[in-house]
Amino acid sequence: MSQNSTDMPSLKLRRVGIDTYKENVAYLHRDCPVYRSEGFQALSKIEIHKVANGNPVIAVLNVVDDESITALDQLGLSEQVYRQLDVPDGTEVFISHATPPTSLKSVHRKISGERLAYKEYLDIVSDIVNSRYSKIEIAAFLVGCSETGMEREEVLNLTRAMVDTGERIDWGGHQVSDKHCIGGIPGNRTTMIVVPIVAAHGMLMPKTSSRAITSPAGTADTMEVLAFVEHSQENLREILTKERAFIAWGGTANLAPADDMLISVERPLSMDSIGQMVASILSKKIAAGATHLLIDIPVGPTAKIRNSSDGLKLRKVFEYVGDKMGLHTEVILTDGSQPIGNGVGPVLETIDIMKVLENDPAASLELREKALQLAGRIIEFDFDVRGGQGYIIARDILESGRALEKMNAIIDAQGRNPNPLTLGILRHDVVAMESGIIKGIDNLKIASIARLAGAPMDKGAGVYIHKKIGDTVSQGMVLLSIYAEFNADFNFAIALAEKESSFTLESHE
Amino acid sequence: MSQNSTDMPSLKLRRVGIDTYKENVAYLHRDCPVYRSEGFQALSKIEIHKVANGNPVIAVLNVVDDESITALDQLGLSEQVYRQLDVPDGTEVFISHATPPTSLKSVHRKISGERLAYKEYLDIVSDIVNSRYSKIEIAAFLVGCSETGMEREEVLNLTRAMVDTGERIDWGGHQVSDKHCIGGIPGNRTTMIVVPIVAAHGMLMPKTSSRAITSPAGTADTMEVLAFVEHSQENLREILTKERAFIAWGGTANLAPADDMLISVERPLSMDSIGQMVASILSKKIAAGATHLLIDIPVGPTAKIRNSSDGLKLRKVFEYVGDKMGLHTEVILTDGSQPIGNGVGPVLETIDIMKVLENDPAASLELREKALQLAGRIIEFDFDVRGGQGYIIARDILESGRALEKMNAIIDAQGRNPNPLTLGILRHDVVAMESGIIKGIDNLKIASIARLAGAPMDKGAGVYIHKKIGDTVSQGMVLLSIYAEFNADFNFAIALAEKESSFTLESHE
Repeated sequence: MSQNSTDMPSLKLRRVGIDTYKENVAYLHRDCPVYRSEGFQALSKIEIHKVANGNPVIAVLNVVDDESITALDQLGLSEQVYRQLDVPDGTEVFISHATPPTSLKSVHRKISGERLAYKEYLDIVSDIVNSRYSKIEIAAFLVGCSETGMEREEVLNLTRAMVDTGERIDWGGHQVSDKHCIGGIPGNRTTMIVVPIVAAHGMLMPKTSSRAITSPAGTADTMEVLAFVEHSQENLREILTKERAFIAWGGTANLAPADDMLISVERPLSMDSIGQMVASILSKKIAAGATHLLIDIPVGPTAKIRNSSDGLKLRKVFEYVGDKMGLHTEVILTDGSQPIGNGVGPVLETIDIMKVLENDPAASLELREKALQLAGRIIEFDFDVRGGQGYIIARDILESGRALEKMNAIIDAQGRNPNPLTLGILRHDVVAMESGIIKGIDNLKIASIARLAGAPMDKGAGVYIHKKIGDTVSQGMVLLSIYAEFNADFNFAIALAEKESSFTLESHE
Repeated sequence: MSQNSTDMPSLKLRRVGIDTYKENVAYLHRDCPVYRSEGFQALSKIEIHKVANGNPVIAVLNVVDDESITALDQLGLSEQVYRQLDVPDGTEVFISHATPPTSLKSVHRKISGERLAYKEYLDIVSDIVNSRYSKIEIAAFLVGCSETGMEREEVLNLTRAMVDTGERIDWGGHQVSDKHCIGGIPGNRTTMIVVPIVAAHGMLMPKTSSRAITSPAGTADTMEVLAFVEHSQENLREILTKERAFIAWGGTANLAPADDMLISVERPLSMDSIGQMVASILSKKIAAGATHLLIDIPVGPTAKIRNSSDGLKLRKVFEYVGDKMGLHTEVILTDGSQPIGNGVGPVLETIDIMKVLENDPAASLELREKALQLAGRIIEFDFDVRGGQGYIIARDILESGRALEKMNAIIDAQGRNPNPLTLGILRHDVVAMESGIIKGIDNLKIASIARLAGAPMDKGAGVYIHKKIGDTVSQGMVLLSIYAEFNADFNFAIALAEKESSFTLESHE
């Protein structure tokens, strides 16, 4: 340790191979003279400067008792901070106590029930994006903003702040359509049908999708069964010019980057407030350059939105914020009472999707109808299409085979996956314990079984649902089949499926 | 990695020398087969079992890229989890996904504005005490309970839950008095005068005090200048029997243990809601076996409580909860407009205290008066003392030298510190830049200067305040002296003191 002219203590930087995800963590040895003399404490925040009194990076302190992790004259940095500081191992760095970000005062005001203005949200979001907030400070902000506390004007302020603190893609002034489902319904993979239909109609639809986080498959996971989904921005622009659409993964890290930071705390907290949801979705779409957006809100007893009154409330906030942000936003409430289609899991969903695109008579009618409905609404974003005509145009495109043709063109442009579709080699059938009519299917349980079976990591794992609401079944009939690739996963999934049924049956009169 | 009969993956335990304070953190290598196959993610929570399907310990996952920290077949544990699990390095342990604690549902209800019952607080507090909550979950609970959201009935429920989830000291059915100041006033070290007076009157006053966390000195830090303060429960009982009092540190880790967990998140968030404060203080006192409690709430523009209306509100909650818990609670609002006494820092405060006990004519009148006031109120907890007589009894005890005698007996019983009182060797005087009358002294600035100077770590460091509110000063007169033991600290403290004055002066007419 040395003291420089301005009396800031210096330490040698040491990269510590620990990934603390979105939180900056720094490590100091308990017997490090700086730790003792400066009165630092575990969990206190410190500023790390490349040059004394330079622009600091902020991190939370963990105290180390093992010199092989961080020695007495070193400052250990987790991967996340190390990348931000961007200087080599052994560099002399300076540390000081971090003053709490001034925007925390606004968070306290929010917690005590006040409304915040755009400037305040901007300061908070900027501090979050620049890693000046610890996870617990982000949690305090999220809870302060939750259900009871956010006016729609504030949702707009937050959305704008999230867009303004990241990059924005410019598609050259063209109309760009997008769709988004708020999620929660297994098998609901309409995107891969909607995109080729809309593109075949001639509209631009550059679709970046996520991988699954808590669900058994994201669109990116499922598209990956057919084609490569990880492309550079440059590649994507070429594919878009040629095919008017793509279905790719990610590349959105710099778009509304606050979103990822907020989600990293929301998810473990299982928080999903309306305000945060709207700001999260719209900021990403606006930053991604969408001009027209269709939002799908499934409503059902085991969906994210449980009744149409909540759905309506959510719709209004989407519309208000979308309009004010200059994004043409339409919202439809759809049937979320059970999974859409039959397959749940990347390969199983891909099979469903291809059957629809191929006009296979065995295709799921539900999936087909829902995709046509959504595609029809997006096609009506076309100035030249009369209201009510979109569905018919979409159906023509699908039935004529032009949708399938476009899908194949997109797959080829992205690079066809050379490996064939393979379902998990392990299969177990869950049968009805009694006869009756199916009254309900639990989305959450179906999703859990499919995840336990290995989806989305194992592409061939998942669940095939044989019977849907309204179907009559006799005792012993197969309700669902579990597919898995590994024994352990397989047994977990079977245990859950057999413990408590995902189906509600009403016996015959 | 092996799979045991119940298909729970096992790993070899590895102690990782990182102190993550009150949060359980476990480390898995990114290429560890379990990490990949089970779909664990950074920040997700895992259960760690000593035997497959045994009673689990819960931890948050960090991902490691360095095999020297955690190898592919190992599960790394931070010190905190390692101690809880209590099995040696290399032991085979089993891990699984942790299901979120069910009490989190109550936290969500609290966040959306509902009231929680005792049973719900008990479940939440039990889960917190058993380390089933991550820091962000604790933050969510605290914010949900903050200012806008906690009825006094709920504060009672929380207090009771905090008492019921820890140990309770039993002093054999005797009346046991305690005092507590909500803090924020530098130099306010009345305890070391009150305790010997009350004990000399013959009442029991076993006083466990804290070390400073954010202030320049806690009572334990100051008492340590005179005597050893770290004793076993057994020792303390002996001292109490002999002297009717002690002034010791800690030993309270098992009393209302939730308190420490909550504070570890409150502090970095700078949250200090009334409900949490009351539950925190009362649960600790009740668990420590107090039957009678005097609470001191200093009120002033730079105190924790800024005006008497807020003070009154706080008082009512203390009284309500104290009464319902069967703790005789009295609350007094005191003058918190400036530091009490002249010294701030362990040695400086000790000098002040001893002058009062020795009836030195140069003793601080303020400190003497305040201590007598508080001691008088506690003496009135004695059934045989008439209301209004306590102060006179306390003064008699002080003036007769019996308080000093008792203090020396307590010091000897605890073990006298053989090292003499030494003030920091570095001294700097801050002088008035103009003439005038002192109108205000900033408690927070005084505390910061004393801390920067090295208090409480360096016992001889701190601040001596020469002039108080109402005093007339001429330009160049010494307002305060800074004492430090090390140059770097000394310079920090001087820089802060000279940058912005802690004194508000009004010039003469």
